[in-house]
Amino acid sequence: MQHFDSDYMEGAHPLILQRLIETNMEKTPGYGCDYYCENARDKIRKACNCADAEIHFLVGGTQTNATVIKALLRSYEGVLAADSGHISVHEAGAIEAGGHKVLALPQKDGKISAEIVDNYINIFNKDANHAHMVKPGLVYISYPTEYGTLYSKEELEQLSSVCKKHKIPLFLDGARLGYGLMAKDSDVTLETIAQNCDVFYIGGTKVGALFGEAVVITKPNLIENFFTIIKQQGALLAKGRLLGIQFDTLFSNNLYFEISKHAIDMAEKLKDGFAKKGYQFYFESPTNQQFIILENKKMEQLEQAVSFGFWKTLDEEHTVARFATSWATQETDIDHLFELL
Amino acid sequence: MQHFDSDYMEGAHPLILQRLIETNMEKTPGYGCDYYCENARDKIRKACNCADAEIHFLVGGTQTNATVIKALLRSYEGVLAADSGHISVHEAGAIEAGGHKVLALPQKDGKISAEIVDNYINIFNKDANHAHMVKPGLVYISYPTEYGTLYSKEELEQLSSVCKKHKIPLFLDGARLGYGLMAKDSDVTLETIAQNCDVFYIGGTKVGALFGEAVVITKPNLIENFFTIIKQQGALLAKGRLLGIQFDTLFSNNLYFEISKHAIDMAEKLKDGFAKKGYQFYFESPTNQQFIILENKKMEQLEQAVSFGFWKTLDEEHTVARFATSWATQETDIDHLFELL
Amino acid sequence: MQHFDSDYMEGAHPLILQRLIETNMEKTPGYGCDYYCENARDKIRKACNCADAEIHFLVGGTQTNATVIKALLRSYEGVLAADSGHISVHEAGAIEAGGHKVLALPQKDGKISAEIVDNYINIFNKDANHAHMVKPGLVYISYPTEYGTLYSKEELEQLSSVCKKHKIPLFLDGARLGYGLMAKDSDVTLETIAQNCDVFYIGGTKVGALFGEAVVITKPNLIENFFTIIKQQGALLAKGRLLGIQFDTLFSNNLYFEISKHAIDMAEKLKDGFAKKGYQFYFESPTNQQFIILENKKMEQLEQAVSFGFWKTLDEEHTVARFATSWATQETDIDHLFELL
Amino acid sequence: MQHFDSDYMEGAHPLILQRLIETNMEKTPGYGCDYYCENARDKIRKACNCADAEIHFLVGGTQTNATVIKALLRSYEGVLAADSGHISVHEAGAIEAGGHKVLALPQKDGKISAEIVDNYINIFNKDANHAHMVKPGLVYISYPTEYGTLYSKEELEQLSSVCKKHKIPLFLDGARLGYGLMAKDSDVTLETIAQNCDVFYIGGTKVGALFGEAVVITKPNLIENFFTIIKQQGALLAKGRLLGIQFDTLFSNNLYFEISKHAIDMAEKLKDGFAKKGYQFYFESPTNQQFIILENKKMEQLEQAVSFGFWKTLDEEHTVARFATSWATQETDIDHLFELL
Repeated sequence: MQHFDSDYMEGAHPLILQRLIETNMEKTPGYGCDYYCENARDKIRKACNCADAEIHFLVGGTQTNATVIKALLRSYEGVLAADSGHISVHEAGAIEAGGHKVLALPQKDGKISAEIVDNYINIFNKDANHAHMVKPGLVYISYPTEYGTLYSKEELEQLSSVCKKHKIPLFLDGARLGYGLMAKDSDVTLETIAQNCDVFYIGGTKVGALFGEAVVITKPNLIENFFTIIKQQGALLAKGRLLGIQFDTLFSNNLYFEISKHAIDMAEKLKDGFAKKGYQFYFESPTNQQFIILENKKMEQLEQAVSFGFWKTLDEEHTVARFATSWATQETDIDHLFELL
Repeated sequence: MQHFDSDYMEGAHPLILQRLIETNMEKTPGYGCDYYCENARDKIRKACNCADAEIHFLVGGTQTNATVIKALLRSYEGVLAADSGHISVHEAGAIEAGGHKVLALPQKDGKISAEIVDNYINIFNKDANHAHMVKPGLVYISYPTEYGTLYSKEELEQLSSVCKKHKIPLFLDGARLGYGLMAKDSDVTLETIAQNCDVFYIGGTKVGALFGEAVVITKPNLIENFFTIIKQQGALLAKGRLLGIQFDTLFSNNLYFEISKHAIDMAEKLKDGFAKKGYQFYFESPTNQQFIILENKKMEQLEQAVSFGFWKTLDEEHTVARFATSWATQETDIDHLFELL
Repeated sequence: MQHFDSDYMEGAHPLILQRLIETNMEKTPGYGCDYYCENARDKIRKACNCADAEIHFLVGGTQTNATVIKALLRSYEGVLAADSGHISVHEAGAIEAGGHKVLALPQKDGKISAEIVDNYINIFNKDANHAHMVKPGLVYISYPTEYGTLYSKEELEQLSSVCKKHKIPLFLDGARLGYGLMAKDSDVTLETIAQNCDVFYIGGTKVGALFGEAVVITKPNLIENFFTIIKQQGALLAKGRLLGIQFDTLFSNNLYFEISKHAIDMAEKLKDGFAKKGYQFYFESPTNQQFIILENKKMEQLEQAVSFGFWKTLDEEHTVARFATSWATQETDIDHLFELL
Repeated sequence: MQHFDSDYMEGAHPLILQRLIETNMEKTPGYGCDYYCENARDKIRKACNCADAEIHFLVGGTQTNATVIKALLRSYEGVLAADSGHISVHEAGAIEAGGHKVLALPQKDGKISAEIVDNYINIFNKDANHAHMVKPGLVYISYPTEYGTLYSKEELEQLSSVCKKHKIPLFLDGARLGYGLMAKDSDVTLETIAQNCDVFYIGGTKVGALFGEAVVITKPNLIENFFTIIKQQGALLAKGRLLGIQFDTLFSNNLYFEISKHAIDMAEKLKDGFAKKGYQFYFESPTNQQFIILENKKMEQLEQAVSFGFWKTLDEEHTVARFATSWATQETDIDHLFELL
């Protein structure tokens, strides 16, 4: 059976496991106050070219979104996000459980534009009843988006600019950040992101780590007492050094970028293969998630030997399927897939 | 200056004030445990033909929606509502502050259909990822809607039926209930509402009372410890008898219905007047709120002598204005308005 | 039957009802943006000698506590309060429902001292684990306390000073404020309170109004968007002018102070009566609540003709009963009580 | 430097790391729906002798407490716990952030008795104002307690019985469960715990795992939709199999119990050593945490070569220090400590 279901089906990159083994019996203080975490923070600051960044390590994506968003908003504020955004749909109401409305915006290819954000806030400000409404207090975007698409550098700068204009922070969910940064033709670097976002996170769970997300607060003192907020949210790992070791490894010798690049290469190979065989794509995705339109008959046949994600029913005879590659995908997995097709 | 801004510009119907004066120096227990509240409950039960109904008196609409919805939902559930619903837009995120997502549905004329609700829940149930999503746990509708429109008896029965099918309660926001019940050609009675809804409230604030909303729970024991929930929400009035006296008066001698009828008569007169002068309506509203399309020049001229609500900008030359009548509107107010037009 | 159960058994002072009648058919804007609210705000600012104070009118005490405390705290903070405080015991968890811990402090006669607050915060700051604990972010006191006792001017100044030292606000719950201010030998004025507290409220519900609490924020801009926070909490009265009219009346011609003084006179008469008959007091209360130790036999006999509050079981043969006077208590009520004793 | 600071200073038991390596490149479904989680569940059910138990794996202790408690309580309920309990003091208000009050009870040696719980609930039920108060809806205990002490089988049965009597669940926090079960003279087994608690968790983080807590719901269907609640709390690990593999290993070949026993042996050795040297103990702890009274001078000297936890200042010349052993403590660590003393 070939598996293309998701990008979190394996454990961790072998180098990470090796480091965990080497350090296993060392005794360190808990909660992220150890040497490995400090090391990882330094390396991430350098990679972001953001010497003042405050960095915290959390365990998972929904947890990170809920914690950061709760920390950034006042009680009367909500978060602007694409209606297809992870926080809008697939986090079981974690943002609302924290007391805040997700103000869903229409998206195009999973992205929201600076113009739409600007319009929303302008209309809000002009509305005679806006004191009875949820104030937009934050913009949330995903990079790559849930549809595998990417913001360009210009689009990020425009979003950043509109946020500055309205004095609200921009938060970027980078659960799959590496796969965005290493996409072909992407003009966005980690530095671009650090320059344009007030807070973002570098996803580990889907990019080579066992688990872990590195939150980067690019403006020092933006969030007071974030450590305690993390604790209150149940998001503070006792053995914090496990996160430090993982990110230290990922940000040594360019590993994070190399394994991300590999996943992109695999995605390109997959894309080419499908294209050559005449398949069509539901989204034009330059990243590790590919959305293929399959005839239902073909799909059923394929499911005998390959597993992949159901995305949506297109029409009575066609389904959109999601194929994800990752740092762990092997070239032979894809060869084998196309033998089956 | 003539005022048609809203239906809560005056104090209370004079009979209510009179009763408050007569009873002012009586000593009663607090928190709704008094003779007047009991009396009012009995009269409401009779008016609803629902002998087992549990009735609680709260102070205002947003408060009532937030309290009832929090009481009806479990932490992992959200509330289905029209995207134009009061809870979706104009309650400053009160539902989310209580921890729950408002699952916004597309509406037609401010209404959601049983079909749309059914589809939403069916699609949710079939979604392979639904355990990662907010479960629809309640349907919220307004009667009349925020657009002044009404559900027919058949539409209510269909909504009720789809809720029963999916085993979730139906909650009706009746902030302007009287104005819906007394609309021309409405086939919905208070009994219809009690039969089809699990919980609803009878609006007092906008229909003759100083303030107050009577929550009717038609199924006994549907909500455990609702008294304590009300207290926790800060919605328990110390001198509860003020609410009892008001609803006792409104439900004596048909007062609630008669004053509602008067508001409808005034709205019809207003409607006829505008129609005769060739104005167009943005919504076809049979209730006390009328949405008139005004040329901007005309509007500015009118604003010198009449106040009304801004609803929305239609195009560069036209605006939609809201004119509301109420139990307190006088025929001469409207005559005077048309002299000005 | 004589009633001394509580201080909210009647409606409102007759002058308030009269003003409600006189203004009943006036049309005003909603939500506290009317002429009467503005007038009341001006009079309260003058009475407090606090020209910059921001004033909001809410409906009830629990609601006001929950709304103010939520507005003043960040997510990781809690509120310091006496373990006998209203928010600690009798608000059904409203503070916790807003996400915050009540950090209960030991009290003496219902009061917490500056020293205890200072110690608590110092110990917290020194605790090596304090980042894992709830940060004290606010001090809450009641004036009078739940035991009828009063802080002296010096005690308030000390509390204020310790709060300033630790940079946290001081919030005073004045549900029975008038009865404290007019107590015999009290050296605290409204001005004292305004000078020492960051936020406090002037209770109307228990002191002559039908309902209503006036929140005074003595530092402008301490709370951003408090209007929206009030709305979100379901605490915004549509016909806000009802609150404005009531507080305008209470703060005209010294009414609030005179009727409070009357309640104190009645309490003193009650106290003298009990003392002369040899009864003992459980607390030494200078305000309108008196806590009398009754032999159970005597109590049962008394209950035939007089109603009062149960406070606590003292021992097998004695009970502590609470007798409350109010603006509405008549001298003959008390005469009649002592005829029965 | 010898370290006795806490029981989470190392990584994981080598067998766990080995299993993680062996399984690393296997592809499994996410979120705990994999083969390893199922296996671990079966083994835990057997170890508990509770065939119907529902088992979920979470990441950390505060997270588990917050998630389980929120799932078990209705909005108007609070949780009874020792005032020294972890949820009362050291979880940064996580329970309150979820909307619930921790109803703190006086403890003896870190334990609450069935009698105290029973009294609290009886007094609550008899209180005429209890509908204005937080209803006790759950009992939380820790085993071992934060003071290293243990409930006996009889004490657990009594607590269970009083919970049944009042129809509220009993929840046991087993962050250090193994160290309790393997304590000398303990008459409590995993089966005892499963029989007496409605929900409990088996701590992995402090007992051999990298991280992870296994929640055991002994009554099927006690909590509906717990999976979604876990997701909403941000407590759902994407690569759930990491938890499955760890608990599968811990519950194979008696590993969990053996490594716990080792920690106890080390604690006994430590205890004997201190006792022989004439030191006194602040608590009489039979588990892996030992609380030693140190002269301050001696302490400062010791701190040059040994690290341990500060517990509290006893008097001007003495401090209570906490020494923790764990599965990873080596006999030579302790020998070396006593050479230094």
